[in-house]
Amino acid sequence: MNLAPLSGLYAPSLALVTDLYQLTMAYGYWQQGLQDREAVFHLYFRKAPFQGGYAVAAGLALAVDWLENLRFSDDDLAYLGGLRGSKGTPLFPPEFLAYLRDLKFTCDVDAVPEGTVVFGNEPLLRIQGPLLQAQLLETALLTLVNFQTLIATKAARIREAAGPDDQILEFGLRRAQGFDGGLGASRAAYLGGADATSNVLAGQRYGLPVRGTHAHSWVMSFADEEQAFTAYAQAFPDDSVFLVDTYDTLDGVRHAIEVAKKMRAQSHELGGIRLDSGDLAYLSRGARELLDAAGFDQVRIVASNDLEENLITSLKQQGARIDTWGVGTQLVTAYNQAALGGVYKLAALRTADGTGWDFTIKLSEQLAKTSIPGILQVRRYLDEQGHPRADMLYNTAVPLPERLVLVDPNDATRRRPVRPGAPFRELLVPVFRQGRRVLDLPTLAESRALVQREVASLDPAVRRFLNPHTYPVGLELSLYDYRTQLILAKRPQRPA
Amino acid sequence: MNLAPLSGLYAPSLALVTDLYQLTMAYGYWQQGLQDREAVFHLYFRKAPFQGGYAVAAGLALAVDWLENLRFSDDDLAYLGGLRGSKGTPLFPPEFLAYLRDLKFTCDVDAVPEGTVVFGNEPLLRIQGPLLQAQLLETALLTLVNFQTLIATKAARIREAAGPDDQILEFGLRRAQGFDGGLGASRAAYLGGADATSNVLAGQRYGLPVRGTHAHSWVMSFADEEQAFTAYAQAFPDDSVFLVDTYDTLDGVRHAIEVAKKMRAQSHELGGIRLDSGDLAYLSRGARELLDAAGFDQVRIVASNDLEENLITSLKQQGARIDTWGVGTQLVTAYNQAALGGVYKLAALRTADGTGWDFTIKLSEQLAKTSIPGILQVRRYLDEQGHPRADMLYNTAVPLPERLVLVDPNDATRRRPVRPGAPFRELLVPVFRQGRRVLDLPTLAESRALVQREVASLDPAVRRFLNPHTYPVGLELSLYDYRTQLILAKRPQRPA
Repeated sequence: MNLAPLSGLYAPSLALVTDLYQLTMAYGYWQQGLQDREAVFHLYFRKAPFQGGYAVAAGLALAVDWLENLRFSDDDLAYLGGLRGSKGTPLFPPEFLAYLRDLKFTCDVDAVPEGTVVFGNEPLLRIQGPLLQAQLLETALLTLVNFQTLIATKAARIREAAGPDDQILEFGLRRAQGFDGGLGASRAAYLGGADATSNVLAGQRYGLPVRGTHAHSWVMSFADEEQAFTAYAQAFPDDSVFLVDTYDTLDGVRHAIEVAKKMRAQSHELGGIRLDSGDLAYLSRGARELLDAAGFDQVRIVASNDLEENLITSLKQQGARIDTWGVGTQLVTAYNQAALGGVYKLAALRTADGTGWDFTIKLSEQLAKTSIPGILQVRRYLDEQGHPRADMLYNTAVPLPERLVLVDPNDATRRRPVRPGAPFRELLVPVFRQGRRVLDLPTLAESRALVQREVASLDPAVRRFLNPHTYPVGLELSLYDYRTQLILAKRPQRPA
Repeated sequence: MNLAPLSGLYAPSLALVTDLYQLTMAYGYWQQGLQDREAVFHLYFRKAPFQGGYAVAAGLALAVDWLENLRFSDDDLAYLGGLRGSKGTPLFPPEFLAYLRDLKFTCDVDAVPEGTVVFGNEPLLRIQGPLLQAQLLETALLTLVNFQTLIATKAARIREAAGPDDQILEFGLRRAQGFDGGLGASRAAYLGGADATSNVLAGQRYGLPVRGTHAHSWVMSFADEEQAFTAYAQAFPDDSVFLVDTYDTLDGVRHAIEVAKKMRAQSHELGGIRLDSGDLAYLSRGARELLDAAGFDQVRIVASNDLEENLITSLKQQGARIDTWGVGTQLVTAYNQAALGGVYKLAALRTADGTGWDFTIKLSEQLAKTSIPGILQVRRYLDEQGHPRADMLYNTAVPLPERLVLVDPNDATRRRPVRPGAPFRELLVPVFRQGRRVLDLPTLAESRALVQREVASLDPAVRRFLNPHTYPVGLELSLYDYRTQLILAKRPQRPA
């Protein structure tokens, strides 16, 4: 894995990958002398995407790279210095720009390792440090973690549908949302379970396996399919997959078999055929029969055409004979839910005297959108086999009571006591301390292997696509009670 | 507008932003001696996105930048040289890599200018040149044009819903698909009709107006809302918009009014308040009443929260008093249709003797997915007011008949003759000739103005969101007949 997977890609500083209001707030904090007040923010989503039962945490390695390279360059400052307010005066005074120029990242960051399964309301990142800095990080961290988590989760679902033995190839670059929309998607797709990508830049920058066949235009450039396949086999005698549906799919398979025979006569074997249109269940069975009857049972059948986890499940149920799934648009854009609604919420501020904490809350008409105060950790309780049983969010800044009870944050009547001595692990691990990285990042392949172990450890009821069982995530009871008090204190109590 | 909007952003060469199969096909063509055979490809989509009646062509300026900087760097070639096939031998021989190193872009490119309204099956780009080169361009051109066109179209629809006088602010970076998923989205959103973006890097690189307010965390960092608003007004006395829904929205408006009074006493005016949750129709009316009653009828009401064109239409119908629409996730990811299905199809090849053309076709079980052969141009016929009436696709490589008839490509019974002497314009204009740019690109602001004129020139029935009228796009009759013959010749005629 490339050690600078993101910043190395971009020529300029990436400090301006942010919303303007982060900078206007930063100026406001600086003006008020609040820039160094210690603050704690959590980055989390409220609901797993795709109406699914879980998500796969991802994006940390990119976030680390971005944080380690965060500096305001002279170009950045010149641009900010040129911004004007409605009266034509500079939005930011030179003194503040000088402050930004000298700004160094000094926060503590704790994060859930890439590849861990996570659920709604669980912090994926916890940032603790000077208010101005911690605020400035919001947009870029959300952009990176939201998208990587979304696509890694989609890929894990597609892997679930395809099963452990089939191959999954990602080739969505052409329908991706910009160059690094595609690049980031290829990374996350591999992390989540794809075996390879067609995206050559992603192969180069992230060390992913790259794969490819040929297009319809290749076939159309020759007088007929047999000539086209023969020419391709000359170029790649041991690495050919023929696309057979340019004119008529099963005729295409027959032409592929003719060429495969000639290849075999020269001690080469055809690798596969690809179906890209039509009824994939019917055509793959027909192709398999033709191939097997001709003695080519080693030839793999690759299929593509707007595939995603539900369609793959259905094709398998229909007896499709597909060995390799080419997934593009639906994976790299997470087409049926194109964004993860991750948020970044302030949860604690040092008291003015510097000795304690004020825990903060954002209200909402919907309880589910009300934030959770505290300096949170996620404790995952495990059963005897090491499988997750329930997760507990708790405030690390106050002592835990002896008897632990989990409360559903959205339904106070749903509670479960924690068995004393139950084994657990804590999901958030230290990544930065005072701006210095303290975690060795795993390779992308290691994180990819973790995804498979993590998903397999979940109950099948949580993994299923239709109406999955809700994995229990509770607030530790004293945190729940504290949050309730805070809501009541902040919300106006209007007479009925 | 920055002259190198995309390549300047990225540090390395962008030649590897492609699918591997473009390179494997390139090698195959080179091996067969076909690399310089002249070919014509068209880039087009089949159906306008969002079940809409039109799309806004976009992405050309980015494509031009990419094409002008297309070179295989030593790093690129080293990476490609290291790729191995299934037997462990190099996928590409050194002689081919040397060919790539010396490759220079020499194609002709014709394109529809950014901001033009376009319809299904109409080429947005036509590439004519050496087969190997023209093939190599496919993925990057699709990535750029698909996404820019998708988002520009979404923004044009949101502008249609908001009307010409309301402000539209794009602030979707945090939910965008990667850093340049967000960057490209900000560009296309502005092109399509947004007034400004929150994305500072997009502001810097594309010269877009940037705008921003503050977050809930700003309010939570102070003892109460009035203190928070007062502090923000100190930082931005003439550029403040207060977010009022951290605790209770209408109480928030009252606190904003108190601070606005103090600002007025010091000769400053509050710019606006922002609603980010709850019933925006109800709350905006309530906020307007409170503001007006207090003498603050100049204070704008900004609303955000998963807005898109249908919700904006509904809010306006409900009498919402919203002046500025903050749109994020739904715009920058085109959430309800996260990809445009643009394709890039071979349509003509020089005959072996170099004097004529073979026109090529890709078949499909569905007529709508069958490609259109020829070297195509799009002629847009106009009425007396200069409004579009119908578009004709024709093959520029064969003489046009005297009497022109348009045929619906998917329904041969739907035909309309062209009135002799009807005024028209041709949509595809020369951009490159033999690899040299021949078109001066307009500024982004000019293209943005074109979008508004173009959309306004369409019949309202074509612009409406629900079941829009289908704008007529026909094949010129002789092209239609030729295509039909080609389909019949290529498709196996199996006995019934």
